Parts: sequence; structure tokens; C-alpha cells
Amino acid sequence: MYDLLKGLTVVEAAAFIAGPTCGLYLAQFGAEVIRIDQVGGGPDFRRWPLAPNGESLYWEGLNKAKKSVVVDLSRPEGRELAQRLATAPGEGRGLFVTNFPVDGFLAYERLKALRDDVICVRVMGWADGRPALDYTINAAVGVPFMTGFPDDPRPVNHAFPAWDFITGAYAALSLVSAERARRAGQGGCEVRIPLSDIAATALGNFGHLAEALMLGDDRPRQGNDVYAAFGRDFMIKGGRRLMVVAITARQWRALVGTLGLADKVAGLEAELGVSFAAHEAVRYQHRDRLYPLFEAAFAERTESELAPVFEAEGVCWSRYQTLTEAAKDPRLFDGNPVFGRAAQPSGMDYPVAGPAATVVGRARGAPAPAPKLGAHTDEVLAELLGMSDGEIGALHDAGLVKGPA
Amino acid sequence: MYDLLKGLTVVEAAAFIAGPTCGLYLAQFGAEVIRIDQVGGGPDFRRWPLAPNGESLYWEGLNKAKKSVVVDLSRPEGRELAQRLATAPGEGRGLFVTNFPVDGFLAYERLKALRDDVICVRVMGWADGRPALDYTINAAVGVPFMTGFPDDPRPVNHAFPAWDFITGAYAALSLVSAERARRAGQGGCEVRIPLSDIAATALGNFGHLAEALMLGDDRPRQGNDVYAAFGRDFMIKGGRRLMVVAITARQWRALVGTLGLADKVAGLEAELGVSFAAHEAVRYQHRDRLYPLFEAAFAERTESELAPVFEAEGVCWSRYQTLTEAAKDPRLFDGNPVFGRAAQPSGMDYPVAGPAATVVGRARGAPAPAPKLGAHTDEVLAELLGMSDGEIGALHDAGLVKGPA
Repeated sequence: MYDLLKGLTVVEAAAFIAGPTCGLYLAQFGAEVIRIDQVGGGPDFRRWPLAPNGESLYWEGLNKAKKSVVVDLSRPEGRELAQRLATAPGEGRGLFVTNFPVDGFLAYERLKALRDDVICVRVMGWADGRPALDYTINAAVGVPFMTGFPDDPRPVNHAFPAWDFITGAYAALSLVSAERARRAGQGGCEVRIPLSDIAATALGNFGHLAEALMLGDDRPRQGNDVYAAFGRDFMIKGGRRLMVVAITARQWRALVGTLGLADKVAGLEAELGVSFAAHEAVRYQHRDRLYPLFEAAFAERTESELAPVFEAEGVCWSRYQTLTEAAKDPRLFDGNPVFGRAAQPSGMDYPVAGPAATVVGRARGAPAPAPKLGAHTDEVLAELLGMSDGEIGALHDAGLVKGPA
Repeated sequence: MYDLLKGLTVVEAAAFIAGPTCGLYLAQFGAEVIRIDQVGGGPDFRRWPLAPNGESLYWEGLNKAKKSVVVDLSRPEGRELAQRLATAPGEGRGLFVTNFPVDGFLAYERLKALRDDVICVRVMGWADGRPALDYTINAAVGVPFMTGFPDDPRPVNHAFPAWDFITGAYAALSLVSAERARRAGQGGCEVRIPLSDIAATALGNFGHLAEALMLGDDRPRQGNDVYAAFGRDFMIKGGRRLMVVAITARQWRALVGTLGLADKVAGLEAELGVSFAAHEAVRYQHRDRLYPLFEAAFAERTESELAPVFEAEGVCWSRYQTLTEAAKDPRLFDGNPVFGRAAQPSGMDYPVAGPAATVVGRARGAPAPAPKLGAHTDEVLAELLGMSDGEIGALHDAGLVKGPA
């Protein structure tokens, strides 16, 4: 938790990964982020994996450091209350992130009628409002046909929902950028961010689309080879695999040197009339000639032999490890100062992620836990909408809001 | 191109994907982004894929809408010039994004000595400064062991460098957040964003880490099945595959209804004593019983039969298509208003990505092209550092800076 965004209050009405990730990143940078939760929780409140006490490890991970207001969104009065929260008056407020439909009760026009300079960041599936999830977008843009090995024609879905996470980070960027513009006099706005456009622009941005149009065909799938550089998995003595990449000339020289392959590589260069250090693409073009040299060198070395020299010489590598192994890797999880402990609703004791960024010299503090559903209902109604105890009590009596169970 | 970040000037000294993506996203939101390019280009200036004229489609995609200043970074005077550009005086300046090492000539302390409130966002590999790329981090966190089919034990690298793109978006968020904090009186700072921490926190944020610790093992790989919901690829009549997901009850009912499976599904519910609509995890638990019903239903229907009813009923689906097919899909690339035409260095005519966000009601305009190397050298030296023509000429004479070839 850092204080970079202190003074911002963001209201979030969102489920699944992209929208809640937007709010999470903002909260971990110091914004006050208030979730509007449906009575009983939204559609992902009990999404697996579940802890032994029945709480969702998924939900509690995505909603850390936020506040929760429970509102009955099935009734017109509850929907109006949600609109009022999203458009609460005050500088640094009127900031709303959602994945609700463009034309429903959280439509921008309805919010704008209540606060003219409201900012709404809306995460969507397809740009036209049709439903899509990370996995359907991934199928649509061709990535599963590029993933996996050439000896197996099945499309391979990615296991990590990358489009969701990029969308979440980009949505947070959009919200903070729009708030800057509002203070600069540009007024409020609605920013729409469809997963489909996140995926399409990404594939455009690193030349993939232009290449496919130029070739008239997709880049063929190539297993674990890194495109246009020297990089692949290699099996070492004992059967473990390492991922090794040499994209810069320095990394290439370090790899060749530490494996004792300088002479053999020079011989191959003489035979082919090329310099592998000159450009990473040369290494890629002739990778089928290079691989046997490296396969043999790796096969006769153990990780404990390789690791210290790789580290000393700046080779770019990692062993393949399971997440369960990685959990004990102090560079990643347990022991990584980015993680800490938090009293999560699950009651489980595990390393909880704070912000991925480290602001050097400022205290990051412990990660804040996810809220219990409705834990901040009364507090938020009082602070954002200036309601009296009597007014809040009346809302409870009418069943329009709920506190913690 | 939108004007949300008008008034910000960001200096970028970065190669490969994450750092340049940070600058790209900022530029497409209206910041002036100035690249410092090494003479002849940085290590990725000729990275594949290449256009017929030799320009990199990768580089021109990642560096759209930026300016380029060419500086000889191999000489002390050139390095000092880079430091001065990164720390140029003025409000909205002194914003620097880089992937150069923490302790080199672009170390934070050196920059802070020139401008006390400088903000430096530093993209890194491992947090301790050791080299890492998207692909080595991916191997380290266990994703390749979760990807692919259970009948093949090989780890499967992701084809799309997700960690790079998330890091890029998160770095842009960090920079705009830190600039907000600076205007609020917090001073400048260095924000470090290692790929390793982006990956580790992401796997923490949606419950994956906690689940692995709870189970003492990784989630087994499960091919194209979506975890804890009903979702998978299905082959339709004619051999094409569709990706179909039912994560909400509404999506489930729509899918079952449009496929005419209501009776068969009800029979299975009666046999098993469950309600598939009650929770997505019930559908996941019994997926091996459900799949045969759906496989049979899909196998006897064509896409032209399915598409209109799926669209009408709100089924969440997509066909699997290659990127080459997707290039003609007006929802994604050609015909998508997010894309436009730009005079890129490659000279090729293809749909060029603008910002993924749509700010409703504001003109997005055409995407701006990537610069020619050094195209803005003189302009930037005059504007940022207030140099006279004579001073700039002397730098050229000394070979410390270069204009366009």
C-alpha cells in the first residue's frame, strides 16, 4: 500500500477479473476503493477455489484493500442508491469502474445526469456489448493456434487469463488519466475498454498483425521456441528443464561461454558463414543447427553446476518450476517483500500480494485484506452521501442495504 | 490519440516490450513521449518481424506516437545528455521510464541530483536486478505446467508475452499515479516494477497461489477446460472448433436452450441430484457427464446455424480463428474503429492500433506513426533543454547526437 493516489475515491461495481483488478491496483496505490456488492455477493463471490471455510480465495485475492457496501440492486431504490454512490459529490470522487452493461441502470447518461463531470471506466467483452470472456477473446484472435507444439494440431488455450489482467491495469491507467484530464478542465467522460480491443491492439502493437497480413498466414506454432531469438527449454542432467533465452549479444556470449561451446559455435559459424552474435535472428534462423550442441551440453550438467556460473555471467535463464515449487522461491512468493500477511476472510495464512510496484524508500506496509461483504455499508453511506444514522437505519429497515453478516 | 494526458512529457529509454508499451499507452493518451535512442537504434531496433524494406514491424508497432532523439550513449557526454533529458525542468516534465539497470548511468540517484522531484519508473527482470524475460519468468511461476493437455507432459510456454504487456500497462499506471502524487506534494520517486513481481502478484491475486498452498500441489493441467465453470472448445459440423463458456446462470441457460439440451440436462440433474444453474462449479464438477451431451449437439450443427441463435440468446462463445482470419474480422482488426492507417517507417499499409480505450464522444483521430530514428533530435534539444542552434550544431559536430538518416 502506497499513498500515490491518496485523495481519490473510486466506486467499483464489477465482477470477475478485469474490473476488480482495476480497483485492486488503484487501492494498492492509495485510492479509497468502494465496492458496491449485491446482497449475498455478486456472480463471482463464491467462485472457486474455495477455502475450507467456504470463502472464495479468488474473490478475496481480487478485492483486497477495498471497502464493501451491500445494496439490493434488484430494486429500483437500490439501483438509484448505486447511482448516487458512483456520482457522490466532492473532489476526487465521481470515479466509477464497472463491467455492467452500457445501457442498463449504470449507463453513463444516467450517471451524468447526477454528476456532470462523472468519470466512468467500463470494462466490456466485445465493443458492441456482446458477451465475451478472456477465453473466448483468446480463441477469436488466434493465440491458441500459435501455442503448443507443431506435432499436435489442437488449439491450446492459455491457462493464465492474460487479457483480463492487461485490461485491469489499462483500466486503472485510464481512470487516473481521465481524472487528471478532469482536473485540467476537460470534464468527465466514459472510457470503454473491451477485452476484444485490448487483445487486438496488443497483437497489433508488437507487429504480429502486420506480419500475418504480410505473410498471408499465421506464424507457425513452434513449441517453446522464442520467436526470432535463441530461446527454448532444455533438459538438464536429472531430467529437469530450464528455460534459456539469449536475445542480446551479451546474453548469447555468456551462454555460449558458460556452456563451453565457444569452439563448436565458432566452427558452425565458419561452416555457415554467419556471426551468431551479430543479430538474434541469425541464431533463430539456424536454431536447428545450434540446438544439438546445446542439448548435449545441457544434458551433461546439473542445475547446481549451472546456476552459479549462469548467475555470475548474466545468462538469462530460469528453471521450470511448478507453482507449488515457486511458492517456496524467496524471489517470488514466500520471502518476497512484495508479499505479506493479511487477515483474509478465508482465515487462511498464506503470502498475500501487495502492489507489484516498489516505491523505493517508502514504506509499503502490510497488504490490506478483502472486506467482509457489507462491512463498510454504514460508513460509506454516511461519508459519501452524508446520510444520518436515521436515514441509514431506514434503508436497513427497508432491506435496501445490508451490513456484515 | 486522446488528450487525457496533455501537458505531460515523458522521456523513455527502453527496449523490448514492457518499457515501450508503457510509453506507447501514455502517448496514445496524449502525453508527449520522447524516446532516447542509441545511435543506430537500441537492441530491438531490427527485431523481427521485418518489413520488405528492412524496418522492424515490432519496433514500429511499439513506438508509435513517440518522438525520437538519437544520442551516443557509449560516451560520457552522451550519457550526461540523456540524464539531462530525463530530468528536464518544467511542470509535467522530469518523468522517465526505462529498463536500464538500477545502478548504471541512469540510476535514480544520478537523476535526482539533477532534478530533485524526478519520477523514474523502472521496468526490471528480477527484483534483484538479474536478467529475466517474459519467457523465463513464465517458466519460474509454473504457468507452462498448467498449460496444455493432460495427455502430454511437456511444459507449454505461452505464445503471447502476457507478463510484458501487463507490466507495460502497470508501469504507465505507476507513472501517472506518481505524477499525481508529485503534484500533491509528495515529491518525486523511483518506482521499480520487476516482471517477476508482476507475475507473482497476479498469480496471488486470483487465488492461484493460495490454492496451491492449500492443496500442496498445482492445479492439474486440463487442456482447454475453463477452471471451475462450464467452458471448453467443441468441434462443430465441418470440423471447426468453437470456444464456449457458461460462467453465469444466464449464459448456462442460454447455451442449454439454444442447443435443445434442456430435457437431457434436466435428466442428468435428476440422476445426480444437483442443479447445474445453481453454481458454475456444479457444472465443472460434473463436466465429464455434461460434455458428451454437448459434443453430440455441436457435432450436428454448423456455425451458420449456431451463430444467429447464440447471438440472439446471449451465449458467450467465439469460433477459434487464426490471426490471419481474425485480421478480416471487423470486430477485431480491419473495420474496427480502434484501428486506422498511419505512415509507418515500413511503408506498409495495414491496420495500425490506436488506444484500446474509447473515450465516448471524443474524436480518436488516426493513429500516429512511429518516428524515424532521430527525427526529433533538434526539436527536443531546443524545447526540453533550451539549446540554441549553435549548441545543437556543436553536439552534431561532436557526433554526440544524430538527426534522421
